[in-house]
Formats: sequence, C-alpha cells, structure tokens
Amino acid sequence: LEAQDFVHLEALLEPLHAADIADMLEQIDYKDRRALVVFWRGGIDGDILSELDEGLREEVIGFLEPEELAGAVRGLETDDVVDLLEDLEGPQKEAILVALEDADRVAVQQALSYPEESAGRLMQREVVIAPEHWNVGQAIDHLRAQNDLPEEFYHVILVDPRFKPTGYVTLGKLLGAPRAVKLRDLTEESFMTVRVTQPEEDVAYAFNQYHLISAPVVDENDRLVGVITIDDAMVVLDEGHEEDILRLAGVGETSLSDKVFETTKARFPWLFVNLITAILASLVIAQFEALIAQLVALAVLMPIVASMGGNAGTQALTVAVRALATKDLTSSNFWRVIRREALVGLANGLVFAVVMGLVGYFWFGNALLGVVIASAMVINLVVAGLAGIFVPVSLDKMGVDPALASGAFVTTVTDVVGFFAFLGLAAWVLI
Amino acid sequence: LEAQDFVHLEALLEPLHAADIADMLEQIDYKDRRALVVFWRGGIDGDILSELDEGLREEVIGFLEPEELAGAVRGLETDDVVDLLEDLEGPQKEAILVALEDADRVAVQQALSYPEESAGRLMQREVVIAPEHWNVGQAIDHLRAQNDLPEEFYHVILVDPRFKPTGYVTLGKLLGAPRAVKLRDLTEESFMTVRVTQPEEDVAYAFNQYHLISAPVVDENDRLVGVITIDDAMVVLDEGHEEDILRLAGVGETSLSDKVFETTKARFPWLFVNLITAILASLVIAQFEALIAQLVALAVLMPIVASMGGNAGTQALTVAVRALATKDLTSSNFWRVIRREALVGLANGLVFAVVMGLVGYFWFGNALLGVVIASAMVINLVVAGLAGIFVPVSLDKMGVDPALASGAFVTTVTDVVGFFAFLGLAAWVLI
Repeated sequence: LEAQDFVHLEALLEPLHAADIADMLEQIDYKDRRALVVFWRGGIDGDILSELDEGLREEVIGFLEPEELAGAVRGLETDDVVDLLEDLEGPQKEAILVALEDADRVAVQQALSYPEESAGRLMQREVVIAPEHWNVGQAIDHLRAQNDLPEEFYHVILVDPRFKPTGYVTLGKLLGAPRAVKLRDLTEESFMTVRVTQPEEDVAYAFNQYHLISAPVVDENDRLVGVITIDDAMVVLDEGHEEDILRLAGVGETSLSDKVFETTKARFPWLFVNLITAILASLVIAQFEALIAQLVALAVLMPIVASMGGNAGTQALTVAVRALATKDLTSSNFWRVIRREALVGLANGLVFAVVMGLVGYFWFGNALLGVVIASAMVINLVVAGLAGIFVPVSLDKMGVDPALASGAFVTTVTDVVGFFAFLGLAAWVLI
Repeated sequence: LEAQDFVHLEALLEPLHAADIADMLEQIDYKDRRALVVFWRGGIDGDILSELDEGLREEVIGFLEPEELAGAVRGLETDDVVDLLEDLEGPQKEAILVALEDADRVAVQQALSYPEESAGRLMQREVVIAPEHWNVGQAIDHLRAQNDLPEEFYHVILVDPRFKPTGYVTLGKLLGAPRAVKLRDLTEESFMTVRVTQPEEDVAYAFNQYHLISAPVVDENDRLVGVITIDDAMVVLDEGHEEDILRLAGVGETSLSDKVFETTKARFPWLFVNLITAILASLVIAQFEALIAQLVALAVLMPIVASMGGNAGTQALTVAVRALATKDLTSSNFWRVIRREALVGLANGLVFAVVMGLVGYFWFGNALLGVVIASAMVINLVVAGLAGIFVPVSLDKMGVDPALASGAFVTTVTDVVGFFAFLGLAAWVLI
C-alpha cells in the first residue's frame, strides 16, 4: 500500500471473502484505511460495506463518491440495503435510494417504515410461495418456470387465497416426494409465523428455541409480507449476546474501532454510577472513624469483606441475568432459586469465614477480630446471593434491562452491607 | 399432576414443542419432575431428552427403564444420539447402543471416537452427494429416486471420484436451473470444508463470519465424512457465548437446575482467588497503618480509588476479551488499542480526579488530601486501562482462556496500585 502498488494489492484482496476484507479495514488505522478505500474504489462492493462494523461504515462510505456508493449497493438483497440505510442520512441515503430499481426502492422504504430492530427490518421480501392445494409436481414445475428465485431459500411457503401462510415444505421434501403428493401433506411441524412488528430478539429466541430454518413474516391482517432466515437470526443472536456481555461490564455499545472520545463517553456513565456507590460505602465507613482510629487493623481488613461480597454478588447476578434472558428464571422457580442462592452464599460464607477468622487471628493476634470478620463474611455472602437474584428480577419486572443496571445496585448493596456488618460488629464486640 | 389426572395432563403437554416441555421439566422441582416423567413415560421422547439441560438429562434418563429409553432415542438423527451418549455411562449407554440399527450404531461409535467438542461430534453423517460431472437433470432424477434423504439438507455436495468434496449447489439453484446445466457451473462461492478434528467453536466462528448454511466435513485424507448445518453451529455459538459470560463473572459451567452443593463448588474457586487478591491488597494497606492512624480520612476514601480502578479495568478487559474471541484484536492493531485505552483511562481519570479532589477537599476540608486522591485516581484509571488489555492478551498468548482468568489478575493490579498510589502519595505529601 505504501508503494501504491495497485496491481499487487488487487491480487492480494481479490480472493478474500468480503467479511475478511471488512475485518482488515477495521484493523488498520484511519490513514491507511482512507488510502486503501480511495485507491481500491472499484473493489469496495456492497457486501464489504454490509460486513463493516457500524461505527466504521459511515466513515468508509464517506470516502466514496455517491455514484460509486450507488453502484456498490445495487447488487445487494433488500434486507442488506435496509441495514445499510438505517445508519445513513442526507445525500448518501438519497444516492443509494435513487440507485435502486423502482420495485426495490419501494420495498426498502416500506421496510424502513417498520420500527427499528423489528422483524420487518430483518426480513427479506422475496418469498417463494405456492397455493396450499397444489401437489409436488405443480410446485416443482412452477419453481422451474420462474427466473427470479431469491438467492437463498429453504422452504416453499403455502398460502391460502387471502395470502395467509398456512404451512411450509422444505426443498428437500419437495425433491424427495412423488409428483402426485399434496404439498399440505408434506408440511413441517416446526412451522410458525412471526408478526412484522415483533422485536428481533424475540425472533432470534424463537429460532434458537425451536430450531427454525426460516419463518414467514405476516402483517396485522395475517397476510404474508416476507421471510426471515436462520442466518439473519444468527446475526441478531450474536449481537444480542455481545450487547449483554458489554452491558454486564458497564460498557455501552462500543467497538474496537471507536475513537478515544466516544469510548470515554461510553464508559463514563457506569464509572460515574460506581463513584456514587463508592461514596455511599465511604459514608458508611465515615460513621466508624473513631473506631478505626483506635484499631487500624479494621481499615486493613475491611476491603476484604466488601470485595468478597461484590464478587459473590456478581456471580449470582450474572447467572440470574442469563437465566432471565433465556427465560429459564420464571415465577414458578423464583423462590427455589432464591433459596438456593441463600444456601450457596451461606455455604461459601462459612468456608471463607473460617479462613478469614484464622487470618484475622494469626495476623493481628486478636481472636475477637477473627470472629468479627468471620461473621461479617457470612452475612455479606448471603446478602450478596439474595441481592444477586432480587435486583435483576425486580429490574426486569420494571421493564429495565437487568444486564445494564444490576451490577451497580448489587455492588452498592454488598459494599454497604459489607462495611456496615464488619465495622458495626467490631464496634459492638471489640469496644 | 397432583390429582394424577393423566388424560388431562396428556392433553396439556401433547401440543407443546419438545423444547418447551424440556424447559418446563427444568423449572419444576425434583419431586414433581420425577412424578411427571414416571407418569408420562410414553410421552418423553428423544427430542425432549435432547432439549434438556445436560445437568438434568441424566436425572430424567434415570427415571426411565432401559427399554423406554431405547424406544425414545430410536427416532433421533445420529448427531443427536451422539450428543445424548456423551454424558452417559454404563447400562444406559449400552441400552441405547443396543437399540440402534446396526448402521446407526457404527456411525455413533465412529462419531464418539472423535475428540470431544470437535466437528466430528457435531456433524451428521447423512450427506447428499452428486458426482461433479453431473448436470441438473441427472441430480434431480437421482434425488427423486432416493427414498432415504436426510430430514434436513440444503445443498447437494459435489464430490470427485476420490470422494473429495469440490463444491456445493443449493437446492434452490438446482430447482431453478435448466436440466442441461452442469452442476459445477452452479456452485456457491461460499463453499468451504471443515476438518473432522477441528474444534467446534472454530466451526461456529466460520459459519458466523462467512454466513454459511452448511459445510461438508472431511477426514485427514480430504474424503467427505459428514456435514455440519447452521442450526448445529447456532447452538455451539449460543453455548460459547453463554460460557464466556459466565466465565467473565467467575462462574464455571453452571445452570439454574444445579444443586446447592454443585453451585457452591463451581463458584468457590473464583471467590478463593479473589480472597488472595483481597489479602494482597490488604498487605499494601498494612504498610501504611501508622499513617492511617494519624489520618483516618484515608481509610474512608481509599476504597473509592480501588473500586473505580476495578471497574475501569473490568470495562477494558471485557472489551479486550470479546475482541480476542471475535478475532478483532490482533497484533496489527494491538498498540493502537493500548494507546486508546491509556488515553481513555487518562480522560476519565482527569474528570473523576477533579470530582474526587473537590469531594476530598469539601468533605475533610483538606486541600492536599484532595490533590492526593485526584492524582491517585488518574494513575489508577490509566493503569486499569493498560492492565485491561495487557492481561487478557498475555493470557491468550499463553494459551489460557482470557475470559476465565483475566478478571482476577486485573483486579489484583487495580487494587494494589490503587491503595499504593493513594496511601503512598498521602505518606509523601501529607506527613
């Protein structure tokens, strides 16, 4: 690239998959990226743009002239064009829309009219259908006569005269069955439809739970408007997981290619919440200043109790947040899970109480100090287990994403309870 | 169930999907579960057993007689049988193997001979093939003449005379093309093969990255031995994510249906590591006992610095662990990411330094104390950002799963640095 060796570069990039080229663009820095895109204009096609991280997509699109951009997207399926357009505005969006064929433009604009992250945005509008009364032979002849079949399809969807989907037949079954067999006798048990306004995470959950390959999408009148395939659901599932992991760690939607300022901004809120939490905990400690001045060993040992509680709480809440996400934690097993967490907290609390009691005794030669830290440890680990379940479940009931907010609440509880139990017991027993 | 109303129960359960019945079995308690399974023996089929959480599967299988078990698995595809057998031993395993048809038994035993969590365990052995020189008409006639096509297949795999896969054709293309067209002119660009010994996560990554629907599996001689489909890859991807989330929180492989003892055991190691970390941090504090006795405000404020560092470190390390898992963090952008993390730490550090400096000053009326906590905050947030990247990348290089072990190391660094910077600066400036 340095040497502007265009022919050589093309030979290197040509055989790569669009996803790999996109990954490479994400990994090089801004200057190299601009040089490469400007240099290799012709090669940046719609597939590469689709694969690019959303944060970078706008930047790369900005390097392209409107006509180049239009050329690049012309080869894409409508659902991929929708995905691209979602993040664009102004002249670039216009350029893409103008470049599309009339039918595609209408389809894309229709898709953009559905709510963000809904099934309507995810689906492709190209469907393969057959009247439900047809037999295998009719369906095969009909398919073979068409010349604009979608790139990828796995089922023939049966529709009634009102265009309502009533079942589907896999292409494998269609190929394997005698010509006279009725299509409706070959339909799959797994058949289910998705409403166009349904959130995309619900769709991904259904694909995962029921092992679907494709699902017809219907509008409010139950009429077929499109189809969602497993590869789209897989992307949603993957992104949802990614979001959950990042949210649990208090990182907003970020990616490695974000700039310093964006990253700082994304991480700031969580750190700020944590600061409030930490100051709350400090206020508890401040109540015991006189005590600590008398026995500095307390200051040395107190972070241990809080830290163990914080960790046990994080363990319990992570399990709870995941169980909520996979719908494994419901009202029917809630109390059983609560009881289990309390017992787990008690069991681990007792083990660590013995360990810390001994540490406290041998380190500071004070048996009572050992008893105090041991008791505080048991209390805090039980509270951590309970808070780890109650907090996410309550947030979920209130409609707040438990992955996003649970951590802060649970840590507040374990810090405050940890310091209070330890220093409070110390004030009571030791003085 | 209480009333042992068998007919009513059957009417309730019959229409449910196997996955939903399995979820329900997971949510009721042991007693109800045993009663239900014993009562509804005939209804527990192979699909329900496949869907059950691994922890419960053994329990539920234990309620069934060997013959019932054998009947249940007879209807499953070989890859699902393999999945069931992996966790079983002794008479139950024997009963299932004996129940299988000879050809299936050989297939299952062959699959079990591949390493755990490899492509060989994941694949199904039923493949649909055609010689590469055939045309569309020959392939269609051949498929229509067969009567044991697999339940689900999406491609016809082309093989050369040595049974080496050389490409594949989607069923949609096959149905849409004229009979005289050569199969090899219809093959997909996305074609790639998987080696039978490849780890299943690598396979799932490839499906996700290259939007594969199915991939032929080959042995060490490049001969076709099976095929992996996207629904299997989706399950692996889903489980891998789940594991990553739980590992990041220091929870081993667990599920809601684990017993108290198992859960306690699974969470203990991480808490133990955290205890060592916390004691290390306490040893740092212990070096400054005399100082704290003089100025108890230090004991009140010191957890804030450590806690902020811990959080910032967790944010950075989570982003790094994810980027490593998705292969977005490589040697080509490592130093750029490091620089960014240091700058983000510096930026957030400066903001919080100002806030905490003011808090320290107004709370304790001590301007120098404000300067000390502000400086310690900046130091610890920069160190947190650096440790958050260096630790997971180093663990990854050493072949240790960064999701599992990074948290403990990063927290140790931020605790030790946090306390040392704060108390050390205080000793230097204030006394």
